[in-house]
Amino acid sequence: MVQQMEQMYEGKAKIVYKTDDPNLLIQHFKDSATAFDGKKKGEIKEKGVANAAIAATLFGVLEAAGIKTHFHEMLNDRDMLIDNLKMIQLEAVARNIAAGSLAKRLGYEEGVVLKKPVVEFYYKRDDLGDPIITCQHVQELGLVNEDEFKTIRDLSFKVNDVLGRFFNERGLDLIDMKLEFGWDKDGQLVLGDEISPDTCRFWDTATGEKLDKDRFRRDLGGVEEAYVEVLRRVTA
Amino acid sequence: MVQQMEQMYEGKAKIVYKTDDPNLLIQHFKDSATAFDGKKKGEIKEKGVANAAIAATLFGVLEAAGIKTHFHEMLNDRDMLIDNLKMIQLEAVARNIAAGSLAKRLGYEEGVVLKKPVVEFYYKRDDLGDPIITCQHVQELGLVNEDEFKTIRDLSFKVNDVLGRFFNERGLDLIDMKLEFGWDKDGQLVLGDEISPDTCRFWDTATGEKLDKDRFRRDLGGVEEAYVEVLRRVTA
Repeated sequence: MVQQMEQMYEGKAKIVYKTDDPNLLIQHFKDSATAFDGKKKGEIKEKGVANAAIAATLFGVLEAAGIKTHFHEMLNDRDMLIDNLKMIQLEAVARNIAAGSLAKRLGYEEGVVLKKPVVEFYYKRDDLGDPIITCQHVQELGLVNEDEFKTIRDLSFKVNDVLGRFFNERGLDLIDMKLEFGWDKDGQLVLGDEISPDTCRFWDTATGEKLDKDRFRRDLGGVEEAYVEVLRRVTA
Repeated sequence: MVQQMEQMYEGKAKIVYKTDDPNLLIQHFKDSATAFDGKKKGEIKEKGVANAAIAATLFGVLEAAGIKTHFHEMLNDRDMLIDNLKMIQLEAVARNIAAGSLAKRLGYEEGVVLKKPVVEFYYKRDDLGDPIITCQHVQELGLVNEDEFKTIRDLSFKVNDVLGRFFNERGLDLIDMKLEFGWDKDGQLVLGDEISPDTCRFWDTATGEKLDKDRFRRDLGGVEEAYVEVLRRVTA
């Protein structure tokens, strides 16, 4: 049994702790939620518990499809044992249906189905507002080289494909999804962070109802219920 | 001699007229200047004359290097006879040194020399604020296909290379440059629009002095003089 050690990092929705094994960390899921670059803040009751369980299940789905993730096991209902990855300072966003910044960028109505999935990259820099960047910017910044960039992009498409089908079978449309990757101790590319209604958009296939953090962002009500509903479908 | 016909389009710095030849247009260079998506407006005395002469010279330099441009001839000191291109709704921005939005996006100080030149693409949509877009967005929008995108990118690098050397020989550093392309009547990719201190950043190699529209954007004074100085060097 690993021992939790000092806090390494506190983010908007999670706290990461070291353990007595240098290759393992504990990721603790909080109830706090932020939106609009931290301008909006709040608590979503039991969000941490729901997101931890959703993420654990989805990491399992991905592992079963041959995609390496940082997930080891749940230690309790909020603490996830994970690989200690060297994180890449990028957010990959896979998109299937226009919403959020893509809808704004391209002048699309929310809900327009994209001709084919798109993967965008954002530079993970809160102080810069996490700007969108291209492969050339990534190389200029020295974040990863061109081949690694393409590998991350291809892997993001694969995650999107596997989970898109998984959600479809559960009556959910996967609109878009943020992914973060890192390098493990063997230099392998591994999916990290979390996959949850905080980091994805899900719409009910039948009704179009939003079942994700947009309920919080836009004050739509029924926020806790949406997270619980996603958990229910994911673990069904 | 072509006859000027009705106005086809009025932009921030130019007016385009039809002619009695459907394959030819007249591009008229105005003195008006705008910045910050049109929020700042002004006149720069004799800018139209300087920019027309600068652009005409640079198109000639590019043609000599085997790059097709829309330029035919100057009809007078503000009116340029050009091909009637089917314009692509993209701005390609070639960058050599960090300035403007790239400096902001990557968190770079202005003046940082990039490891290698970068070409960015912006969706030419005033109503959306001309957002930066990727190859995948371009395909989603149906603006050009992937091969055409790569051709435009490669051609932008070539224009940047040819003109960068041309300016260096004249004591100017080419910081960045906006390019627009279109298809001619034979379906060939052709460089259009203009190349001038309105659409490029130039810094004096010796002193670092800005000799471009940033003097207008930032109220640095000596705006007219900068355009005249660039014209003097380009035609020297």
